[in-house]
Amino acid sequence: MSLLVIGSAAFDSIQTPSGSREKVIGGSGVYAAFAASFFTPARLVSVVGEDWPDDYTARLQKRNIDLEGLEIRSGAQTLAWTGKYFENLNDRETLDIRLNVMGEEYSPLVPESYRESDFVLLANGSPVSHLDLLAKMTAKPRLTVADTMDFYIQNCPDPLRELLPQIDGLILNDSEARLLTGEKNTITAARRILEMGPTFVIVKKGENGAFYLSRRAIRLIPAYPSEKVVDPTGAGDSFAGALLGALAASGRSDPESIIAAMARATVVAGYTVEGFSLERLETLTEGEIESRLAAFRTMITF
Amino acid sequence: MSLLVIGSAAFDSIQTPSGSREKVIGGSGVYAAFAASFFTPARLVSVVGEDWPDDYTARLQKRNIDLEGLEIRSGAQTLAWTGKYFENLNDRETLDIRLNVMGEEYSPLVPESYRESDFVLLANGSPVSHLDLLAKMTAKPRLTVADTMDFYIQNCPDPLRELLPQIDGLILNDSEARLLTGEKNTITAARRILEMGPTFVIVKKGENGAFYLSRRAIRLIPAYPSEKVVDPTGAGDSFAGALLGALAASGRSDPESIIAAMARATVVAGYTVEGFSLERLETLTEGEIESRLAAFRTMITF
Repeated sequence: MSLLVIGSAAFDSIQTPSGSREKVIGGSGVYAAFAASFFTPARLVSVVGEDWPDDYTARLQKRNIDLEGLEIRSGAQTLAWTGKYFENLNDRETLDIRLNVMGEEYSPLVPESYRESDFVLLANGSPVSHLDLLAKMTAKPRLTVADTMDFYIQNCPDPLRELLPQIDGLILNDSEARLLTGEKNTITAARRILEMGPTFVIVKKGENGAFYLSRRAIRLIPAYPSEKVVDPTGAGDSFAGALLGALAASGRSDPESIIAAMARATVVAGYTVEGFSLERLETLTEGEIESRLAAFRTMITF
Repeated sequence: MSLLVIGSAAFDSIQTPSGSREKVIGGSGVYAAFAASFFTPARLVSVVGEDWPDDYTARLQKRNIDLEGLEIRSGAQTLAWTGKYFENLNDRETLDIRLNVMGEEYSPLVPESYRESDFVLLANGSPVSHLDLLAKMTAKPRLTVADTMDFYIQNCPDPLRELLPQIDGLILNDSEARLLTGEKNTITAARRILEMGPTFVIVKKGENGAFYLSRRAIRLIPAYPSEKVVDPTGAGDSFAGALLGALAASGRSDPESIIAAMARATVVAGYTVEGFSLERLETLTEGEIESRLAAFRTMITF
């Protein structure tokens, strides 16, 4: 079934203990659509400036990502993020961020052909733009999932509260779940989020896996044990993208399908961090995903 | 097959956000033998003072724990620990510890009937007493597993290094694995530990589960999602005890049996923390364990 992804397309400048890169392709929408593409072709809604290289567009097209919704605004500059990861690779510092074309006035351009998409991923970004996009859909999607983060919880609490009853699932990490609810226990926090609107929540715990919670079910997935972490950028975005890609490919959204999709999302996110930017995902094959998935299944079966 | 557990028997005085208890039954050997008893009767090697109540002995006997190796030393006092848990329940502070009868000169008394035990758990305690016990065994056990912690890594590095080649498996938590090896990545740290002697290592990640690593295999288990944590004391000890109890009951120690035992150990440790001291374990039934195990399996199957 069709999958629409809205999220950022950006220039990332990254320092990690393994090295650094300047102005490489990044952004939540880019990572999510790219990760989804291993399971289903995604439609991307995003905006870049006139400085966006044709080569970056070509790299997305190579994965059959539909770019009719990628607005290239003349006279504007692409979102640019500069960040540095510390030795433990869990903590990072934003050295510079220029929202540029993705500033507060950003209103997503949603092509006619996208407006009846079956599955929708609101990848990390402003809940204001998420609400804007949902208002432009002409048919209610079968499944809408949003990814959010501490910045929006702290700075856009009202639009986020307005968004939550309009989505089916929310993805966030454990500290963000606690921040959003004020609860100390992560499971209790997830239950509180269900009271805010979504029918399920997926809580990511970084290198410790993730869990799915609805009113009726809970599902757990450990992280794939990675020894090679080159650049953590985009891990969460590719988790969300691969999750929705796998769900859209199956056309289902019951707990069993979601945990199966979470396993695939975990594997793809594990590959993402093995290289800078899209470097590892660009050489990744479906065969590699299947083989790591089989190994992962063996690791957790008792 | 027979299981020998060596570890402490103690008076615990505990404060948690849920309440407090004074001089309740505790200790690594007590928790481990009690948890093991749901799978196989354990032989306990420990020492207490003349202040040890008969009632505490009776509570252990009720679970068929063999107490021939529980030395009651007259003129001595039982190990007493006083601790406080903080709001997050992960961090704790030792307010007072009196080693008393379990001081540095402690040399375990190992009954003749224990000296050919098939499975041996060296529960949390001094590696000096672990070496002492192993020297007293007349037959090499089929499987010897030690549990250790930061205190012994920092204060008894030489006996610990001497112990590692004499055991089959080491259990410790993730920060302790990094402390022991100086490695930052937990998996890499676990690989380094294999070079120090054991054929496998089990790394616990608190509320994030645990993994098993040998030269040939890796296995993962998430934690059972607990909302009701009353008192975390003994969680690690009962994990180790239930693990060895389940292995001794199966008579096996291959990776598949170990991951199956880790699942049971996770479930039992999850019950332990639902009450102070042994309170929850004393009402626990095999049926409850089986039912939570089935739920746990459903949660992680994809």
